[in-house]
Amino acid sequence: MSSTAPTIPSDLAAWCVANDARAQNELFAFLRIPSVSARSEHKGDCLIAAQFVADALTHIGFRADIIPTPGHPIVLGEWRHAGPDAPTLLVYGHYDVQPAEPLELWTSPAFEPTVRDGRIYARGSVDDKGQLYLHIKALEAHLAVRGTLPVNVIVLAEGEEEVGSENLEAFLQREQQRLKCDAVVISDSTMFAPGIPSILSSLRGMAYLQIDVQGPAGDLHSGMYGGAVVNPAMALARILATFHDADGRVAISGFYDHVRPFPDNVRAQMRALPFSEAGLMHEVGVTALGGEPGYTALERLWTRPTCEVNGLLSGYTGEGAKTVLPAISMAKVSFRLVPDQDPDTIARLVREHVARVLPIGVTATVTALHGGRPWRADLQGPIIDAGKRALQAAFGREPVITGEGGSIPVVGDFERILGAPVLLMGFGLPGENAHAPNEWISVENYQLGIRAAATLLDEFAVAFTMSRG
Amino acid sequence: MSSTAPTIPSDLAAWCVANDARAQNELFAFLRIPSVSARSEHKGDCLIAAQFVADALTHIGFRADIIPTPGHPIVLGEWRHAGPDAPTLLVYGHYDVQPAEPLELWTSPAFEPTVRDGRIYARGSVDDKGQLYLHIKALEAHLAVRGTLPVNVIVLAEGEEEVGSENLEAFLQREQQRLKCDAVVISDSTMFAPGIPSILSSLRGMAYLQIDVQGPAGDLHSGMYGGAVVNPAMALARILATFHDADGRVAISGFYDHVRPFPDNVRAQMRALPFSEAGLMHEVGVTALGGEPGYTALERLWTRPTCEVNGLLSGYTGEGAKTVLPAISMAKVSFRLVPDQDPDTIARLVREHVARVLPIGVTATVTALHGGRPWRADLQGPIIDAGKRALQAAFGREPVITGEGGSIPVVGDFERILGAPVLLMGFGLPGENAHAPNEWISVENYQLGIRAAATLLDEFAVAFTMSRG
Repeated sequence: MSSTAPTIPSDLAAWCVANDARAQNELFAFLRIPSVSARSEHKGDCLIAAQFVADALTHIGFRADIIPTPGHPIVLGEWRHAGPDAPTLLVYGHYDVQPAEPLELWTSPAFEPTVRDGRIYARGSVDDKGQLYLHIKALEAHLAVRGTLPVNVIVLAEGEEEVGSENLEAFLQREQQRLKCDAVVISDSTMFAPGIPSILSSLRGMAYLQIDVQGPAGDLHSGMYGGAVVNPAMALARILATFHDADGRVAISGFYDHVRPFPDNVRAQMRALPFSEAGLMHEVGVTALGGEPGYTALERLWTRPTCEVNGLLSGYTGEGAKTVLPAISMAKVSFRLVPDQDPDTIARLVREHVARVLPIGVTATVTALHGGRPWRADLQGPIIDAGKRALQAAFGREPVITGEGGSIPVVGDFERILGAPVLLMGFGLPGENAHAPNEWISVENYQLGIRAAATLLDEFAVAFTMSRG
Repeated sequence: MSSTAPTIPSDLAAWCVANDARAQNELFAFLRIPSVSARSEHKGDCLIAAQFVADALTHIGFRADIIPTPGHPIVLGEWRHAGPDAPTLLVYGHYDVQPAEPLELWTSPAFEPTVRDGRIYARGSVDDKGQLYLHIKALEAHLAVRGTLPVNVIVLAEGEEEVGSENLEAFLQREQQRLKCDAVVISDSTMFAPGIPSILSSLRGMAYLQIDVQGPAGDLHSGMYGGAVVNPAMALARILATFHDADGRVAISGFYDHVRPFPDNVRAQMRALPFSEAGLMHEVGVTALGGEPGYTALERLWTRPTCEVNGLLSGYTGEGAKTVLPAISMAKVSFRLVPDQDPDTIARLVREHVARVLPIGVTATVTALHGGRPWRADLQGPIIDAGKRALQAAFGREPVITGEGGSIPVVGDFERILGAPVLLMGFGLPGENAHAPNEWISVENYQLGIRAAATLLDEFAVAFTMSRG
């Protein structure tokens, strides 16, 4: 690996400057397609968006297929002319977007991209059309300037990321041979702060459960039966209160057994980030933070497993007073997981815990609604090295290593099924409203993203060759 | 007081037999009026029902007034010709009824009284039209047979009992002089079991509160913020879990301070009742009962204060999984009270308790939605003695002393404002569906109720005179 400070190759840099305006106009056309995967009335729009991606790939010299799935199609672009010794890089992104509602909260229309204050406002601008399309423009830069790419490239764009990527895993399994690659790059995440390029190194997994408590066969009058018949709403509260100890640790037996601590150097890097707990409190509007003792707030969010109540429902919830002793109560409870916790194991532990603490006079069922494995990058190897240098070249400073409290299950799928390491190199920014009205991507980050993605190809070719060395 | 076994006076008994069919037909006409006080579209029907009561009273020789209130009117009937030494008895009942919905669950129409299996099915049959009208028929028996009553009688029928009796207390205050009486009799309760006449000796009061917990300013993504931002749904569960200790006692400091134990003889009588805990479990469909240690289930229901969760709401409660960290959570919590607990004091104690156990990172407000004082009868004096004898005369066995877990705030108002003891002599039966579809009153109990109410007048006159020595 080169030890000189990385730069954007000058031929690519010149092309980028000359083509920034067009790259933005083309993105606008992409953003105007309301490819909302969750809504059946937008099925046709999803197909149009898939065709848009396939056309963009064909136009720059890729072979592109639109591959049907039981849901929305997958677009697969391939360019395999880098020679027998060159590595293969798979670029993953998605062309589907979140629903835009509530529409009345958008300052400009969700599907009419508008630039204000250096930001492109539109549904899908950052999640993920902008971050997918910047890779296509980077590929175009190489092919336009040099007529070739330094590595073989597969572009995989799915249309169901916002609805759970339900058909992706099976596709990866089925097409393992065709998708064989040496690394995967995904731009669908957020930088730590403006001007601070970031490599996302960990994602939390999830075990999402529903707990239903049943007391009497039907709702009862709380005056006539209260005091002798066990109240399932109170029973549920008592059950949930046992999920943490007094200090804020999850108190379910065995919960932490498979947690693999983050390496000290990663912890040290995260602790060195300019993160402000006061800023977080101000952002969400609270006067104190909570959570597991012994960790900073950022570590709790990125590196530690949690237990959250996502929903509660029982009895009378309308205005005023109704004296009901409810027959049933319900809680939605989700556990964010870190390596090497397993969602199925966690669901079993919770089930056993609930059985252990269950008050007499009620029954409880624990139903697993959704599970996803946690993920953590190795943070070494050619694609990580190349990513670091490409980001430094584009942004003028070394990237920081970040974590993410949320879950992106497909990341683990790529590593597990294709056996290739994943680089998460995102160009979003805090406050980007990814799933909310007024979603935006920074114009500057979109342009720097093209430069970083273009540089990544060169750097990956070099790093890969050196690693074979 | 006479020590011979009481009987129904033979002249009144004969009149009752001759008039049972008519008394039922007249009740049917009363039941056909859909006087649903909660629904504004039935305002006219409530007026028609008030007029029906006034007419029935006028018809038997009472003076009757329909007195407007800000809500539905109060009917006041008066007969004051028993002489200067005779006591005055106030009969209270209500002509309004609960809504009949859901209509589709009624076997016969709610407002078309139908006799099946010895029961009169109709909305209001037992709560309270049947139990109010049986008193009017008892008064008619005296006036028809003897041309007079042995005591002065005031009949007070309100039309807002099912919506909280909002204008009754002010009416009692304003008309204290006119309503001056030596005793009050109310038939709006339930017998312990068929064939077992009952005097209801206690009612629980209530402090109904709403607890709102606020965490972050808006809903957050549970992955991005979970673990550092305190979860208000979990915080609520932890707060509620502190309301009882591990054994089932209410653990709010000071909660039991003003509880006046039931007299040993009343406790002994209640313990002697043929109450089956297995029967209660079967009725409500549970396999175990709970509650405060050291008391039978019946004592817990009738004589001990409780804390119940009536409703829970927070976050996402629909189908499937949504990873929200809710901004707010809400619980409706009611405390059933016994003498001498005070609803305002209890609300204050709960507020102090919540402040004491409140997790950091959230705020909580405790709002008092409704309060009612508990009540307990003295179980001595002329009206109680007369009630016991009248019930024994009609049913052929001594009444039992019962309690009631629910709340009827007006009972305490009568005692407090008018200074007169209250006799609760009800003719309902378990399973009567008072607030549910298919409400019914037993035909036999309606008839025996007329006889008991008629006998009560004679017995009260005697007992009152004897008590004056």
